[in-house]
Amino acid sequence: MRVVVPFAAERPKTRLDGVLSPAERVAFAQAMLADVLEALEEGGQTPEVLATAPFDATAVSGVSAGTGSVGSPEVPVRVDDRALTPAVNAVLEASEEPVAVVMADLALATPAALGELFAAEEGVVLAPGCGGGTNALLARHPDFRVDYHGTSFLDHCERARSIGARVGTVDSFRLATDIDEPTDLPEVLLHSENRAARWLRAAGFSLAVTDGRVSVRRGGE
Amino acid sequence: MRVVVPFAAERPKTRLDGVLSPAERVAFAQAMLADVLEALEEGGQTPEVLATAPFDATAVSGVSAGTGSVGSPEVPVRVDDRALTPAVNAVLEASEEPVAVVMADLALATPAALGELFAAEEGVVLAPGCGGGTNALLARHPDFRVDYHGTSFLDHCERARSIGARVGTVDSFRLATDIDEPTDLPEVLLHSENRAARWLRAAGFSLAVTDGRVSVRRGGE
Repeated sequence: MRVVVPFAAERPKTRLDGVLSPAERVAFAQAMLADVLEALEEGGQTPEVLATAPFDATAVSGVSAGTGSVGSPEVPVRVDDRALTPAVNAVLEASEEPVAVVMADLALATPAALGELFAAEEGVVLAPGCGGGTNALLARHPDFRVDYHGTSFLDHCERARSIGARVGTVDSFRLATDIDEPTDLPEVLLHSENRAARWLRAAGFSLAVTDGRVSVRRGGE
Repeated sequence: MRVVVPFAAERPKTRLDGVLSPAERVAFAQAMLADVLEALEEGGQTPEVLATAPFDATAVSGVSAGTGSVGSPEVPVRVDDRALTPAVNAVLEASEEPVAVVMADLALATPAALGELFAAEEGVVLAPGCGGGTNALLARHPDFRVDYHGTSFLDHCERARSIGARVGTVDSFRLATDIDEPTDLPEVLLHSENRAARWLRAAGFSLAVTDGRVSVRRGGE
Protein backbone atom coordinates (compact mmCIF):
# COMPACT_ATOMS: atom_id res chain seq x y z
CA MET A 1 0.00 0.00 0.00
CA ARG A 2 1.18 3.51 -0.80
CA VAL A 3 0.43 6.12 1.83
CA VAL A 4 0.56 9.67 0.53
CA VAL A 5 0.44 12.82 2.65
CA PRO A 6 -0.20 15.93 0.53
CA PHE A 7 1.46 19.07 1.86
CA ALA A 8 1.13 22.69 0.71
CA ALA A 9 4.74 23.57 1.35
CA GLU A 10 4.84 27.18 0.25
CA ARG A 11 1.85 28.97 1.76
CA PRO A 12 0.30 26.51 4.18
CA LYS A 13 -2.63 27.20 6.48
CA THR A 14 -3.64 30.55 5.02
CA ARG A 15 -6.82 30.60 7.10
CA LEU A 16 -4.68 30.89 10.21
CA ASP A 17 -3.35 34.24 9.02
CA GLY A 18 -5.24 36.10 11.72
CA VAL A 19 -3.29 34.43 14.49
CA LEU A 20 0.01 33.28 12.98
CA SER A 21 2.60 35.03 10.81
CA PRO A 22 3.56 33.43 7.48
CA ALA A 23 6.74 31.96 8.99
CA GLU A 24 4.77 30.66 11.97
CA ARG A 25 2.21 29.06 9.70
CA VAL A 26 5.00 27.19 7.92
CA ALA A 27 6.46 25.99 11.20
CA PHE A 28 3.07 24.95 12.62
CA ALA A 29 2.09 23.19 9.39
CA GLN A 30 5.37 21.29 9.40
CA ALA A 31 4.81 20.30 13.02
CA MET A 32 1.40 18.88 12.12
CA LEU A 33 2.90 17.10 9.10
CA ALA A 34 5.55 15.54 11.31
CA ASP A 35 2.88 14.38 13.77
CA VAL A 36 0.87 12.76 10.97
CA LEU A 37 3.95 11.05 9.55
CA GLU A 38 4.93 9.76 12.97
CA ALA A 39 1.43 8.40 13.62
CA LEU A 40 1.56 6.61 10.27
CA GLU A 41 5.01 5.17 10.93
CA GLU A 42 4.06 4.04 14.42
CA GLY A 43 1.16 2.23 12.80
CA GLY A 44 3.54 0.35 10.54
CA GLN A 45 2.98 2.37 7.38
CA THR A 46 5.64 3.85 5.11
CA PRO A 47 4.34 7.29 4.20
CA GLU A 48 5.55 9.61 1.50
CA VAL A 49 4.98 13.36 1.30
CA LEU A 50 3.40 14.84 -1.81
CA ALA A 51 4.52 18.46 -1.60
CA THR A 52 3.68 21.42 -3.79
CA ALA A 53 7.32 22.51 -3.63
CA PRO A 54 10.62 21.43 -2.10
CA PHE A 55 10.82 22.55 1.50
CA ASP A 56 13.21 22.78 4.36
CA ALA A 57 11.93 20.93 7.39
CA THR A 58 14.31 22.58 9.80
CA ALA A 59 11.62 25.06 10.80
CA VAL A 60 10.26 22.42 13.16
CA SER A 61 12.13 21.85 16.36
CA GLY A 62 12.48 18.14 16.94
CA VAL A 63 12.18 17.22 13.28
CA SER A 64 15.27 15.87 11.59
CA ALA A 65 16.69 18.18 8.97
CA GLY A 66 17.68 16.76 5.62
CA THR A 67 17.16 17.21 1.96
CA GLY A 68 13.44 17.47 2.02
CA SER A 69 12.93 14.84 4.67
CA VAL A 70 10.59 15.23 7.59
CA GLY A 71 10.43 13.23 10.77
CA SER A 72 12.44 10.12 10.25
CA PRO A 73 15.11 10.65 7.59
CA GLU A 74 13.56 7.97 5.39
CA VAL A 75 10.31 9.75 4.51
CA PRO A 76 10.53 10.52 0.80
CA VAL A 77 9.16 13.78 -0.58
CA ARG A 78 7.71 13.90 -4.07
CA VAL A 79 7.12 17.36 -5.51
CA ASP A 80 4.12 18.11 -7.73
CA ASP A 81 3.23 21.76 -8.08
CA ARG A 82 -0.29 21.12 -9.31
CA ALA A 83 -3.37 21.60 -7.21
CA LEU A 84 -4.32 18.91 -4.69
CA THR A 85 -6.84 17.08 -6.86
CA PRO A 86 -4.71 16.54 -10.00
CA ALA A 87 -1.62 15.80 -7.93
CA VAL A 88 -3.39 13.07 -5.97
CA ASN A 89 -5.08 11.69 -9.06
CA ALA A 90 -1.69 11.37 -10.74
CA VAL A 91 -0.61 9.14 -7.86
CA LEU A 92 -3.82 7.10 -8.09
CA GLU A 93 -3.36 6.65 -11.83
CA ALA A 94 0.27 5.60 -11.53
CA SER A 95 -0.21 3.13 -8.67
CA GLU A 96 -0.97 -0.53 -9.12
CA GLU A 97 -1.40 -1.05 -5.40
CA PRO A 98 -3.97 0.47 -3.01
CA VAL A 99 -3.34 4.12 -2.18
CA ALA A 100 -4.15 5.92 1.05
CA VAL A 101 -4.26 9.70 1.14
CA VAL A 102 -3.99 11.29 4.57
CA MET A 103 -4.15 15.05 5.05
CA ALA A 104 -1.15 16.74 6.64
CA ASP A 105 -3.18 18.83 9.08
CA LEU A 106 -4.69 15.99 11.11
CA ALA A 107 -2.88 17.01 14.26
CA LEU A 108 -4.95 14.65 16.41
CA ALA A 109 -4.28 11.56 14.31
CA THR A 110 -3.12 8.50 16.21
CA PRO A 111 -1.91 5.11 15.03
CA ALA A 112 -5.17 3.62 16.32
CA ALA A 113 -7.40 6.06 14.46
CA LEU A 114 -5.44 5.62 11.24
CA GLY A 115 -5.48 1.88 11.80
CA GLU A 116 -9.25 1.91 11.35
CA LEU A 117 -8.71 3.31 7.88
CA PHE A 118 -6.17 0.70 6.88
CA ALA A 119 -8.14 -2.18 8.40
CA ALA A 120 -11.32 -1.43 6.45
CA GLU A 121 -11.84 -3.76 3.53
CA GLU A 122 -14.13 -1.84 1.21
CA GLY A 123 -13.00 -0.72 -2.22
CA VAL A 124 -13.07 2.90 -1.13
CA VAL A 125 -12.75 3.91 2.53
CA LEU A 126 -13.41 7.50 3.57
CA ALA A 127 -12.76 9.34 6.81
CA PRO A 128 -15.03 12.38 6.63
CA GLY A 129 -13.90 15.71 7.96
CA CYS A 130 -16.05 18.26 9.71
CA GLY A 131 -17.84 20.23 7.03
CA GLY A 132 -18.05 17.52 4.41
CA GLY A 133 -14.39 17.17 3.51
CA THR A 134 -12.43 13.97 3.10
CA ASN A 135 -9.59 13.97 5.58
CA ALA A 136 -8.28 10.52 4.83
CA LEU A 137 -9.13 7.89 2.27
CA LEU A 138 -8.02 4.49 1.12
CA ALA A 139 -8.60 3.55 -2.50
CA ARG A 140 -8.33 -0.16 -3.16
CA HIS A 141 -10.39 0.09 -6.35
CA PRO A 142 -8.07 1.01 -9.27
CA ASP A 143 -10.56 3.36 -10.95
CA PHE A 144 -11.20 5.65 -8.00
CA ARG A 145 -10.26 9.31 -8.47
CA VAL A 146 -10.54 12.24 -6.08
CA ASP A 147 -12.14 15.66 -6.30
CA TYR A 148 -11.38 17.68 -3.20
CA HIS A 149 -13.45 20.70 -4.16
CA GLY A 150 -16.58 21.46 -2.11
CA THR A 151 -18.25 18.67 -0.15
CA SER A 152 -15.77 16.08 -1.26
CA PHE A 153 -17.14 13.42 1.09
CA LEU A 154 -20.41 13.25 -0.84
CA ASP A 155 -18.62 13.50 -4.17
CA HIS A 156 -16.29 10.67 -3.22
CA CYS A 157 -19.21 8.49 -2.12
CA GLU A 158 -20.90 9.14 -5.45
CA ARG A 159 -17.73 8.50 -7.43
CA ALA A 160 -17.18 5.20 -5.65
CA ARG A 161 -20.72 4.12 -6.43
CA SER A 162 -20.28 5.11 -10.07
CA ILE A 163 -17.35 2.70 -10.44
CA GLY A 164 -19.11 -0.06 -8.51
CA ALA A 165 -16.88 0.17 -5.46
CA ARG A 166 -18.22 -0.51 -2.00
CA VAL A 167 -17.79 2.47 0.33
CA GLY A 168 -16.65 2.22 3.91
CA THR A 169 -16.40 5.09 6.34
CA VAL A 170 -14.24 5.61 9.39
CA ASP A 171 -16.03 7.25 12.31
CA SER A 172 -13.18 9.09 14.03
CA PHE A 173 -13.20 12.46 15.75
CA ARG A 174 -9.41 12.51 15.50
CA LEU A 175 -9.47 12.03 11.75
CA ALA A 176 -12.44 14.38 11.28
CA THR A 177 -10.61 17.25 12.94
CA ASP A 178 -8.43 19.03 10.41
CA ILE A 179 -6.77 22.14 11.73
CA ASP A 180 -7.65 24.95 9.35
CA GLU A 181 -8.91 27.91 11.32
CA PRO A 182 -8.27 29.61 14.65
CA THR A 183 -11.38 27.93 16.08
CA ASP A 184 -9.72 24.55 15.43
CA LEU A 185 -6.65 25.31 17.54
CA PRO A 186 -8.23 24.41 20.89
CA GLU A 187 -8.64 20.82 19.71
CA VAL A 188 -4.85 20.51 19.34
CA LEU A 189 -4.27 21.70 22.90
CA LEU A 190 -7.12 19.56 24.23
CA HIS A 191 -6.31 16.26 22.58
CA SER A 192 -2.63 16.12 21.66
CA GLU A 193 0.74 16.31 23.35
CA ASN A 194 2.70 15.96 20.14
CA ARG A 195 4.75 18.41 18.06
CA ALA A 196 1.91 20.65 16.92
CA ALA A 197 0.59 20.99 20.47
CA ARG A 198 4.06 21.65 21.82
CA TRP A 199 4.66 24.22 19.08
CA LEU A 200 1.47 26.08 20.01
CA ARG A 201 2.35 26.07 23.69
CA ALA A 202 5.89 27.25 22.98
CA ALA A 203 4.40 30.05 20.87
CA GLY A 204 2.40 31.17 23.89
CA PHE A 205 -1.01 29.71 23.11
CA SER A 206 -3.22 28.34 25.85
CA LEU A 207 -6.85 27.38 26.24
CA ALA A 208 -9.33 30.07 27.19
CA VAL A 209 -12.97 29.57 28.13
CA THR A 210 -15.39 32.44 27.59
CA ASP A 211 -19.15 32.14 27.98
CA GLY A 212 -18.79 28.38 28.10
CA ARG A 213 -17.00 28.23 24.74
CA VAL A 214 -13.40 27.27 24.36
CA SER A 215 -10.88 29.23 22.32
CA VAL A 216 -7.17 29.93 22.46
CA ARG A 217 -5.36 32.99 23.68
CA ARG A 218 -1.77 33.92 23.17
CA GLY A 219 0.57 35.14 25.87
CA GLY A 220 -0.96 37.79 28.09
CA GLU A 221 -3.58 38.84 25.57
CA MET B 1 -26.88 0.13 33.30
CA ARG B 2 -28.95 3.29 33.36
CA VAL B 3 -28.83 5.38 30.20
CA VAL B 4 -29.90 8.98 30.72
CA VAL B 5 -30.53 11.52 27.97
CA PRO B 6 -30.79 15.07 29.36
CA PHE B 7 -33.15 17.31 27.42
CA ALA B 8 -33.79 21.04 27.78
CA ALA B 9 -37.49 20.81 27.06
CA GLU B 10 -38.55 24.43 27.35
CA ARG B 11 -36.09 26.57 25.42
CA PRO B 12 -33.90 24.13 23.54
CA LYS B 13 -31.15 25.04 21.07
CA THR B 14 -31.07 28.77 21.75
CA ARG B 15 -27.95 29.18 19.62
CA LEU B 16 -30.00 28.23 16.57
CA ASP B 17 -32.18 31.30 17.06
CA GLY B 18 -30.77 32.97 13.97
CA VAL B 19 -32.14 30.30 11.68
CA LEU B 20 -35.08 28.69 13.49
CA SER B 21 -38.09 30.13 15.31
CA PRO B 22 -38.70 29.10 18.93
CA ALA B 23 -41.35 26.58 17.87
CA GLU B 24 -39.04 25.22 15.17
CA ARG B 25 -36.22 24.86 17.65
CA VAL B 26 -38.49 22.76 19.88
CA ALA B 27 -39.48 20.54 16.96
CA PHE B 28 -35.91 20.14 15.71
CA ALA B 29 -34.59 19.42 19.21
CA GLN B 30 -37.30 16.77 19.71
CA ALA B 31 -36.39 15.21 16.37
CA MET B 32 -32.77 14.94 17.45
CA LEU B 33 -33.83 13.53 20.82
CA ALA B 34 -35.94 10.90 19.07
CA ASP B 35 -32.98 9.97 16.85
CA VAL B 36 -30.71 9.57 19.86
CA LEU B 37 -33.28 7.46 21.72
CA GLU B 38 -33.80 5.27 18.69
CA ALA B 39 -30.05 4.74 18.24
CA LEU B 40 -29.80 3.75 21.90
CA GLU B 41 -32.75 1.36 21.66
CA GLU B 42 -31.44 -0.21 18.47
CA GLY B 43 -28.22 -0.83 20.34
CA GLY B 44 -30.09 -2.71 23.03
CA GLN B 45 -30.17 0.00 25.66
CA THR B 46 -33.19 1.20 27.64
CA PRO B 47 -32.84 4.98 27.76
CA GLU B 48 -34.69 7.43 29.94
CA VAL B 49 -35.11 11.14 29.31
CA LEU B 50 -34.05 13.61 31.99
CA ALA B 51 -36.05 16.69 31.03
CA THR B 52 -36.05 20.17 32.51
CA ALA B 53 -39.84 20.24 32.24
CA PRO B 54 -42.72 18.05 31.08
CA PHE B 55 -43.08 18.28 27.33
CA ASP B 56 -45.39 17.28 24.56
CA ALA B 57 -43.59 15.20 21.98
CA THR B 58 -46.24 15.60 19.33
CA ALA B 59 -44.24 18.40 17.72
CA VAL B 60 -42.20 15.75 15.96
CA SER B 61 -43.78 13.98 13.07
CA GLY B 62 -43.11 10.28 13.39
CA VAL B 63 -42.72 10.38 17.16
CA SER B 64 -45.40 8.71 19.22
CA ALA B 65 -47.43 11.08 21.31
CA GLY B 66 -48.14 10.22 24.90
CA THR B 67 -47.77 11.52 28.38
CA GLY B 68 -44.24 12.69 28.06
CA SER B 69 -43.06 9.77 25.98
CA VAL B 70 -40.82 10.12 22.97
CA GLY B 71 -40.04 7.58 20.31
CA SER B 72 -41.23 4.24 21.55
CA PRO B 73 -44.01 4.63 24.10
CA GLU B 74 -41.88 2.97 26.76
CA VAL B 75 -39.24 5.68 27.12
CA PRO B 76 -39.74 7.16 30.60
CA VAL B 77 -39.30 10.87 31.19
CA ARG B 78 -38.01 12.10 34.53
CA VAL B 79 -38.39 15.83 35.17
CA ASP B 80 -35.75 17.78 37.08
CA ASP B 81 -35.82 21.52 36.62
CA ARG B 82 -32.30 22.10 37.88
CA ALA B 83 -29.39 22.88 35.60
CA LEU B 84 -27.71 20.06 33.69
CA THR B 85 -24.86 19.45 36.12
CA PRO B 86 -26.86 19.07 39.37
CA ALA B 87 -29.61 17.13 37.60
CA VAL B 88 -27.13 14.59 36.22
CA ASN B 89 -25.25 14.40 39.50
CA ALA B 90 -28.49 13.58 41.30
CA VAL B 91 -28.87 10.58 39.00
CA LEU B 92 -25.25 9.54 39.56
CA GLU B 93 -25.68 9.81 43.32
CA ALA B 94 -28.91 7.82 43.34
CA SER B 95 -27.74 4.99 41.08
CA GLU B 96 -26.09 1.84 42.30
CA GLU B 97 -25.43 0.64 38.76
CA PRO B 98 -23.26 2.24 36.02
CA VAL B 99 -24.79 5.33 34.45
CA ALA B 100 -24.38 6.53 30.88
CA VAL B 101 -25.24 10.11 29.98
CA VAL B 102 -25.81 10.81 26.30
CA MET B 103 -26.62 14.28 25.02
CA ALA B 104 -29.90 14.76 23.20
CA ASP B 105 -28.40 16.72 20.30
CA LEU B 106 -26.15 14.00 18.89
CA ALA B 107 -28.08 13.83 15.64
CA LEU B 108 -25.39 11.68 13.97
CA ALA B 109 -25.33 9.04 16.71
CA THR B 110 -25.61 5.46 15.55
CA PRO B 111 -25.93 2.21 17.48
CA ALA B 112 -22.36 1.36 16.42
CA ALA B 113 -20.89 4.63 17.66
CA LEU B 114 -22.76 4.39 20.95
CA GLY B 115 -21.75 0.77 21.21
CA GLU B 116 -18.12 1.85 21.54
CA LEU B 117 -19.10 3.79 24.64
CA PHE B 118 -20.91 0.89 26.25
CA ALA B 119 -18.22 -1.63 25.33
CA ALA B 120 -15.40 0.29 26.99
CA GLU B 121 -14.40 -1.13 30.32
CA GLU B 122 -12.74 1.77 32.11
CA GLY B 123 -14.21 3.26 35.25
CA VAL B 124 -15.04 6.45 33.40
CA VAL B 125 -15.50 6.53 29.63
CA LEU B 126 -15.76 9.87 27.81
CA ALA B 127 -16.77 10.74 24.27
CA PRO B 128 -15.38 14.23 23.74
CA GLY B 129 -17.28 16.78 21.75
CA CYS B 130 -15.81 19.37 19.43
CA GLY B 131 -14.65 22.26 21.57
CA GLY B 132 -13.83 20.33 24.72
CA GLY B 133 -17.31 19.24 25.76
CA THR B 134 -18.39 15.81 26.93
CA ASN B 135 -21.06 14.54 24.57
CA ALA B 136 -21.46 11.12 26.09
CA LEU B 137 -20.03 9.42 29.12
CA LEU B 138 -20.26 6.17 31.01
CA ALA B 139 -19.57 6.22 34.73
CA ARG B 140 -18.90 2.81 36.19
CA HIS B 141 -17.06 4.25 39.20
CA PRO B 142 -19.63 5.14 41.90
CA ASP B 143 -17.87 8.35 42.97
CA PHE B 144 -17.76 10.05 39.57
CA ARG B 145 -19.63 13.34 39.27
CA VAL B 146 -20.03 15.66 36.30
CA ASP B 147 -19.37 19.34 35.74
CA TYR B 148 -20.53 20.39 32.30
CA HIS B 149 -19.35 23.98 32.54
CA GLY B 150 -16.46 25.04 30.29
CA THR B 151 -14.06 22.44 28.91
CA SER B 152 -15.83 19.60 30.64
CA PHE B 153 -13.77 16.94 28.86
CA LEU B 154 -10.61 18.03 30.69
CA ASP B 155 -12.49 18.52 33.95
CA HIS B 156 -14.00 15.04 33.70
CA CYS B 157 -10.58 13.51 33.00
CA GLU B 158 -9.22 15.28 36.06
CA ARG B 159 -12.16 14.29 38.22
CA ALA B 160 -11.80 10.66 37.21
CA ARG B 161 -8.12 10.73 38.09
CA SER B 162 -8.90 12.32 41.45
CA ILE B 163 -11.12 9.36 42.42
CA GLY B 164 -8.66 6.82 41.06
CA ALA B 165 -10.80 5.79 38.10
CA ARG B 166 -9.24 4.75 34.83
CA VAL B 167 -10.35 6.94 31.93
CA GLY B 168 -11.27 5.64 28.50
CA THR B 169 -12.18 7.77 25.53
CA VAL B 170 -14.33 7.05 22.50
CA ASP B 171 -12.93 8.42 19.26
CA SER B 172 -16.10 9.06 17.25
CA PHE B 173 -16.90 11.86 14.87
CA ARG B 174 -20.58 10.99 15.21
CA LEU B 175 -20.51 11.36 18.98
CA ALA B 176 -18.25 14.44 18.83
CA THR B 177 -20.72 16.32 16.66
CA ASP B 178 -23.35 17.97 18.81
CA ILE B 179 -25.71 20.20 16.91
CA ASP B 180 -25.66 23.59 18.60
CA GLU B 181 -25.13 26.28 16.00
CA PRO B 182 -26.09 27.00 12.42
CA THR B 183 -22.62 25.91 11.29
CA ASP B 184 -23.38 22.44 12.69
CA LEU B 185 -26.47 21.91 10.56
CA PRO B 186 -24.63 20.74 7.43
CA GLU B 187 -23.34 17.73 9.34
CA VAL B 188 -26.92 16.54 9.87
CA LEU B 189 -27.69 16.75 6.16
CA LEU B 190 -24.35 15.18 5.23
CA HIS B 191 -24.34 12.22 7.58
CA SER B 192 -27.88 11.32 8.61
CA GLU B 193 -31.15 10.28 7.02
CA ASN B 194 -33.04 10.13 10.29
CA ARG B 195 -35.70 12.37 11.85
CA ALA B 196 -33.58 15.45 12.39
CA ALA B 197 -32.29 15.36 8.83
CA ARG B 198 -35.76 14.79 7.46
CA TRP B 199 -37.08 17.65 9.61
CA LEU B 200 -34.44 20.02 8.21
CA ARG B 201 -35.19 18.99 4.64
CA ALA B 202 -38.94 19.36 5.18
CA ALA B 203 -38.28 22.83 6.60
CA GLY B 204 -36.55 23.74 3.35
CA PHE B 205 -32.91 23.41 4.34
CA SER B 206 -30.34 22.10 1.89
CA LEU B 207 -26.58 22.06 1.61
CA ALA B 208 -24.85 25.03 0.04
CA VAL B 209 -21.19 25.29 -0.89
CA THR B 210 -19.59 28.72 -1.05
CA ASP B 211 -15.87 29.31 -1.49
CA GLY B 212 -15.26 25.66 -0.79
CA ARG B 213 -17.03 25.77 2.58
CA VAL B 214 -20.28 24.03 3.28
CA SER B 215 -23.26 25.66 4.92
CA VAL B 216 -27.03 25.34 4.74
CA ARG B 217 -29.51 27.51 2.96
CA ARG B 218 -33.24 27.56 3.37
CA GLY B 219 -35.76 27.55 0.53
CA GLY B 220 -34.85 29.91 -2.26
CA GLU B 221 -32.68 32.12 -0.09
